Amino acid sequence: MKSDVEQDLQAFWEAGVRTVDEALDALIPSGQGVGRLHESMRYSLFAGGKRLRPLLAMAACEAAGGTVRDAVPAACALELVHTYSLIHDDLPAMDDDDYRRGKPTNHRVYGEALAILAGDALLTLAFSALAKAPLSAEIRVRLIEELSDAAGKDGMVGGQVMDVDASGAGLADPARLADLHRRKTGALIVAAVRMGGICAGAGTAVLDRLTAYGRAVGLAYQIVDDLLDVAGDTAFHKLTWPAVYGVEGARRDVERLTREALDQIGALPGNGRYLDALARFLATRER
Amino acid sequence: MKSDVEQDLQAFWEAGVRTVDEALDALIPSGQGVGRLHESMRYSLFAGGKRLRPLLAMAACEAAGGTVRDAVPAACALELVHTYSLIHDDLPAMDDDDYRRGKPTNHRVYGEALAILAGDALLTLAFSALAKAPLSAEIRVRLIEELSDAAGKDGMVGGQVMDVDASGAGLADPARLADLHRRKTGALIVAAVRMGGICAGAGTAVLDRLTAYGRAVGLAYQIVDDLLDVAGDTAFHKLTWPAVYGVEGARRDVERLTREALDQIGALPGNGRYLDALARFLATRER
Repeated sequence: MKSDVEQDLQAFWEAGVRTVDEALDALIPSGQGVGRLHESMRYSLFAGGKRLRPLLAMAACEAAGGTVRDAVPAACALELVHTYSLIHDDLPAMDDDDYRRGKPTNHRVYGEALAILAGDALLTLAFSALAKAPLSAEIRVRLIEELSDAAGKDGMVGGQVMDVDASGAGLADPARLADLHRRKTGALIVAAVRMGGICAGAGTAVLDRLTAYGRAVGLAYQIVDDLLDVAGDTAFHKLTWPAVYGVEGARRDVERLTREALDQIGALPGNGRYLDALARFLATRER
Repeated sequence: MKSDVEQDLQAFWEAGVRTVDEALDALIPSGQGVGRLHESMRYSLFAGGKRLRPLLAMAACEAAGGTVRDAVPAACALELVHTYSLIHDDLPAMDDDDYRRGKPTNHRVYGEALAILAGDALLTLAFSALAKAPLSAEIRVRLIEELSDAAGKDGMVGGQVMDVDASGAGLADPARLADLHRRKTGALIVAAVRMGGICAGAGTAVLDRLTAYGRAVGLAYQIVDDLLDVAGDTAFHKLTWPAVYGVEGARRDVERLTREALDQIGALPGNGRYLDALARFLATRER
């Protein structure tokens, strides 16, 4: 049976996903657009993703004193960027994955050309959506700066470059592993909570707390991913946290990082209970 | 011997390219960044491009009453987006080109994975550069909106989807051909002159003139490209303007469109002579 906290998170999660999905649906209308481009973009966007980054942004916005509604454009932009990154990462030239979440990957269904272009279009749409958001110009510009820096050459794309380079060599360098995670998944998770805070009009002190929360949760999230991969035996050739620190060491790091994240929440000016529940959920998830 | 107008344009062109190249160089510092990512981005960015879109933005900014300096961030963002589109278009899954401007294409030098990622990073950096530009937040947001809409699913990426789809079928539909050109090259050229105007603080009347100029010049530019391809005999399998309208018809269209573009300039509030010279140059260029 679920606890009250779990039920509370589940209700927040379901309402949040519904709100974000409606907004994403309106950005890429079904049955419109050039050729099969919208279809290809929607295929990956509505392929059953957990909407973690949108939920973190909405929870952070509430924790910073804003409302979930304020964070919807930021939430959409984060999911558009996340989805583009998955499509490009799955390409034959990159990870060459045939399946994601049990469904054929985008390029397996639409071909490589359209998969590349769908990714490009999702990334571009993220910035278009932020530029048109019903927020002040100042806030829109700050959101775009956060997202582009987190997603770009010094953030997520840089992490993917490290990952491509790492296939085969230098697999057990702990500093390199932390740097890779910080860029490849961490940067966008930090951006998610910071963007939520910015939507609420947060100042530097609150954004610093959110950054610390995001860094801790982002790394914990990736370590849990690695642990689940070990359990699933799919990570034998990859640079992973358990490979460097052992399974027990990795579990201890998840606990420590989750405490670090939870420690940030008390000082935030708004309702921090969804940030709290999300950090606990991410540490204990089983898939 | 060059006329005064030609010398004037050449001086503007050389100074403009120098300014933009310095700003681009600072955005992607040589010898920095993750792995070979900066190197790969710079390889294509400094591969001898004409910097046409930056020059159009700077010339439009002057024509709208601003200075070249105001338009530099917009000029850089346009070139970043243009360069990303060339890298992705050249990929094996797309046009599969081994050479561009006489040099091996990005993926031939750096591999497909890094070429895809360099393109992604260039696109993302365009929005980062605009978000950080020393212009008002209002103007930055409008620039980002223009660029993302022109580059995205209903603009340039949409045009590329049409181009990929067109390989093999429906090659001689004139409406489809005009739509393809309007998206694939036209949208970014229109965005270039509109962004130049926005940098100068232009209102709707001036932006409408610049839009009309950009549409005419953008289509003329593509028709000239098609004509040069016919002369070079490289376009036998492609949907081209001369294939639909004949070489003479295509030449007449270039003349008509160039007159349409020039007609817009007199009513602009600033110095329109570079816009004028650019339109004439683009109609008569030989490569």
